Amino acid sequence: MSDTMSIDVANIARFSDGGSSKPQIQHRLDMCRAWGIPQESKVLEIGCGQGDCTLVIAYVVGDEGHVTAIDPAPLDYGAPMTLGEAQARLKESPIGGRMSFHESNLEGFLASSASEALYDYAVFVHSIWYLPSEGVLQKMLAALRGRTKHLLIAEYSLDIRGDTAALPHMLAAISQAEFNSRDAAIDQSDNIQSIMSPQTITQLASQASWELQKEEIVESPEGLEDGRWEVSRVLSKKYRDRLGSSGDSQRQGFSNSLIFAVEESMRALGPSPVPRTLPTWIGSWI
Amino acid sequence: MSDTMSIDVANIARFSDGGSSKPQIQHRLDMCRAWGIPQESKVLEIGCGQGDCTLVIAYVVGDEGHVTAIDPAPLDYGAPMTLGEAQARLKESPIGGRMSFHESNLEGFLASSASEALYDYAVFVHSIWYLPSEGVLQKMLAALRGRTKHLLIAEYSLDIRGDTAALPHMLAAISQAEFNSRDAAIDQSDNIQSIMSPQTITQLASQASWELQKEEIVESPEGLEDGRWEVSRVLSKKYRDRLGSSGDSQRQGFSNSLIFAVEESMRALGPSPVPRTLPTWIGSWI
Repeated sequence: MSDTMSIDVANIARFSDGGSSKPQIQHRLDMCRAWGIPQESKVLEIGCGQGDCTLVIAYVVGDEGHVTAIDPAPLDYGAPMTLGEAQARLKESPIGGRMSFHESNLEGFLASSASEALYDYAVFVHSIWYLPSEGVLQKMLAALRGRTKHLLIAEYSLDIRGDTAALPHMLAAISQAEFNSRDAAIDQSDNIQSIMSPQTITQLASQASWELQKEEIVESPEGLEDGRWEVSRVLSKKYRDRLGSSGDSQRQGFSNSLIFAVEESMRALGPSPVPRTLPTWIGSWI
Repeated sequence: MSDTMSIDVANIARFSDGGSSKPQIQHRLDMCRAWGIPQESKVLEIGCGQGDCTLVIAYVVGDEGHVTAIDPAPLDYGAPMTLGEAQARLKESPIGGRMSFHESNLEGFLASSASEALYDYAVFVHSIWYLPSEGVLQKMLAALRGRTKHLLIAEYSLDIRGDTAALPHMLAAISQAEFNSRDAAIDQSDNIQSIMSPQTITQLASQASWELQKEEIVESPEGLEDGRWEVSRVLSKKYRDRLGSSGDSQRQGFSNSLIFAVEESMRALGPSPVPRTLPTWIGSWI
């Protein structure tokens, strides 16, 4: 991490007022740098959630740039802070004027008067796995055609790259996606609905006439908590109880084995295991 | 590996006449030694397949012992050698008299006149994951109560124990079990129907009043091919084509991501990846 970048992270952390941890900011800044998003860009961010990445993009595009951030989740969703509260706090920061938030899905937003006719960049940062299926992503990628010059996607890849500390996160993602691949069982309280691979995402983008320019892997900075959160969710009593309430014993057995695998992968890390967050695959298309 | 054990492996390999590789024999001998199956034992082996383990048990129990090996699969199942051919060849070996083979499921066999009233040991060696569900195993464990003094179970565990070379095998097992956890999709040509964990097996045994005496992990000897076979199956065109013929796109997406994860875990092992076979968990009950 260069000194310059440390200063940037410290600046953004101050604007975030405790909303984002430094590793979260670092991770998002690493991706913006790898993509080379220039100052003055007009960016559309799809699936912004509490705005962790929105703030980083707003910092990167500078005073002449702007980031329009959309998310279909209700503004009262989330704890301890709701989406609405987190977004309002970011708007009050010194660079709040560079961001606007909209509670909307992509198709609805693009059809509204709030949308620009043409963005420089449309970005999905860790929002693909929140989507229920490939079909939904395919429609979104098609809808973006002609409405943005560049498409940028960042998502975890099911590839621990030889680091067993990332295995609990990988298995926790597989477990959650398994549960949500059941027709009748979709539970919107889970973050992970699908675990689309870089291969699949590239294929869907190509079907919507997006041309891949560049792809690479960005390692997670030390301390990025996402892996630990997903593992905790899977190892919670609440999660196991939910499995137990499903009627299909064959699938229940499969789900239980996946939870066992998460437990063992944690045990293998020693007495005080700290799971590492998976690496992120990033791509850019025109 | 001690010299004595090397001599044993060489002896058994000669009896096997090329039917089993030395690592396969070594692995099965390691388990019989860990369980401490003594000479003169009367053993019932459940799910013997081509008889790889039957031969090793026959060697271990000596001239005064006997192994009765059952499998419900038709005798013409298997390639390049069928079950019937493989079993017939073992019967012709110098210790063939210590083995008998029956094409039968457990409940049917125990009710038949071919069964002893009481065995010293009933063993499941890598046959649990061939069972379609926990319910099936539960019934078998209950049926064995009062018909054997000891229960012995050996099965892979979804635990790579820090060795990323075993990750492709683990993910290939998860992929196959995922496919076969779908109600309508049971395909008996797959080896892996379920991936019951040591936890689950122990719980089912306890429900059938079996008391756990000892459990331990046995590492796979170098060269044990099972992991490589399961990975090859998942990465074959035939396997992927079968997924493509399933109607449910959400589950298809999930399955594809698991195949991707197997591919990446192989790529992470370098240019000529040799996946390692998972460690085996073994338990004994009275």
